Amino acid sequence: MAAALEETPVSYEDLADIERDFDDAETDIIRKQVLLTAPLYARRSKTISQIPNFWPLVLEQAPPDIDQYIQPSDSALLLSSLLSLSVSHFEITENGHGDPRSVSVRFEFAENEYFEDKVLEKKFWYRRSRDGWSGLVSEPVPIRWKKDRDLTGGLLDMVVKAWEGEKTTASRNSNGAVKGKGGLSPEQKALKKKIENTGMGGLSFFAWFGFIGRHVSAEESAAATAAEKQKREDDVGMSLEIFPDGDDLAVAFTEDLWPGAIKYFTQAQEQDALSDADFESDDEDRDLDEPAEDSEDEEDGERPAKKQRSA
Amino acid sequence: MAAALEETPVSYEDLADIERDFDDAETDIIRKQVLLTAPLYARRSKTISQIPNFWPLVLEQAPPDIDQYIQPSDSALLLSSLLSLSVSHFEITENGHGDPRSVSVRFEFAENEYFEDKVLEKKFWYRRSRDGWSGLVSEPVPIRWKKDRDLTGGLLDMVVKAWEGEKTTASRNSNGAVKGKGGLSPEQKALKKKIENTGMGGLSFFAWFGFIGRHVSAEESAAATAAEKQKREDDVGMSLEIFPDGDDLAVAFTEDLWPGAIKYFTQAQEQDALSDADFESDDEDRDLDEPAEDSEDEEDGERPAKKQRSA
Repeated sequence: MAAALEETPVSYEDLADIERDFDDAETDIIRKQVLLTAPLYARRSKTISQIPNFWPLVLEQAPPDIDQYIQPSDSALLLSSLLSLSVSHFEITENGHGDPRSVSVRFEFAENEYFEDKVLEKKFWYRRSRDGWSGLVSEPVPIRWKKDRDLTGGLLDMVVKAWEGEKTTASRNSNGAVKGKGGLSPEQKALKKKIENTGMGGLSFFAWFGFIGRHVSAEESAAATAAEKQKREDDVGMSLEIFPDGDDLAVAFTEDLWPGAIKYFTQAQEQDALSDADFESDDEDRDLDEPAEDSEDEEDGERPAKKQRSA
Repeated sequence: MAAALEETPVSYEDLADIERDFDDAETDIIRKQVLLTAPLYARRSKTISQIPNFWPLVLEQAPPDIDQYIQPSDSALLLSSLLSLSVSHFEITENGHGDPRSVSVRFEFAENEYFEDKVLEKKFWYRRSRDGWSGLVSEPVPIRWKKDRDLTGGLLDMVVKAWEGEKTTASRNSNGAVKGKGGLSPEQKALKKKIENTGMGGLSFFAWFGFIGRHVSAEESAAATAAEKQKREDDVGMSLEIFPDGDDLAVAFTEDLWPGAIKYFTQAQEQDALSDADFESDDEDRDLDEPAEDSEDEEDGERPAKKQRSA
């Protein structure tokens, strides 16, 4: 189908203009939403803090956007030790300034056999780069693993080291990577080799704490918001990323698991009641050997059966 | 994991209470959003009306939630004849009353070889039933097919007939189905047989115009909003549904394709530029025979390659 914009009075800049206005409106809406729901989240936090295992039960029912990243060993740790989880739009100030799209996901843990930390908090800043890209960026969060219990196999530590080296290097280009083709620092070279040798399949959920995203500083972001659009360059940063979809996972926490926590908790309760009632097979047997009860609805070529929903 | 609510001071009713407050806040937010973005959508409509094939190009790039329902023959019709598409929150009145979650999806068509209609409009009302369910319901929309061009193979017509018969029947139960096990009307019986013999795989997108959903009248919905929660019954209505996920599709149009139209249009333009540049294979050959260029990123066990995004 012909790309017909040339034959019209409309330019790409006209379309980009409209998109910018929508973007501003969306930011405005998110800010209103955060302020309007703040007292509701406070009330919810108070109520659910009285329910043991609330958050582990919620995570058990996490939507695919999140669940796909949780490996069995992550799950063992989360189910046994996660005390609480929360999402905050930390850049919003009392007077309503600050970008409401910046989010922080905070986990509180009980004493556990994997790491020393009681709190792990991953912050994502909404930034705009000089070349017109906008989205969430982050910084690696170190985890103090106990001996031989590092679920990321040393990857997260290497990302933290490479990041710290990078911050002290003055010779960064606009994308945050060291200039020149062979210009990786020793830490970056070691990380690159490790990533190439490891493969990212089956990587621990906790590698997420190593996500960086595009290298866009607060200063560049502020300047770029007003600046001209400029052709996007790929950056070497992405090839050193141990959790390439880390920003998507932040969005899934922010827009799905966090607002939907009570729904997922209730689902977990119902699931639990069902498996208590089913004396013929325990959960594990059913997962491994027996077809699910609704498998007859999943024949090839058929649309999936209607999802059950209730208020 | 133990369902631990019994040992806490928290009841399911407490949780449901919180969810109701969130629901009210969300409705409020959607209302604000619709009012705030109305002038932007008006401006966008004016601009894109000057671009030939804008909406066919957008549909070509439709997200999977929508694209999965568009068969090749639907696609031929939509690409050649769709003039415009719009989503409206038709229950919102000037003074801000009305449920902002009720939506209408409206298609305008050029003269075409499939049907006589110039406009097809599918309305979805947000309703609450006596048993506590809430969601989108609709009514079948007839299409005046040209001879032998009915893309639904007669299914849509049968749904319309069964629906009209049902509306004139006084003996409906609370779920809108005729009472009693064998109590289907002749039209419903014919429809049931047709559905059983057809199978729903590969069904036309236009079957969506036959979606009904739960049988909840405006009166029941108004009454139920205040009424006691009551155990949910399954209804025979769902087994006579020719497009069980019709409400999800409405949501995908409302929350994704409609707000994201310029993004999808721009993607279509870029795609077009790419295939113009690629002289070795045309689009169809590539789809059928050749692996996509990024297929090497899709090895088993690897996470999908990072999606490219730009502002």
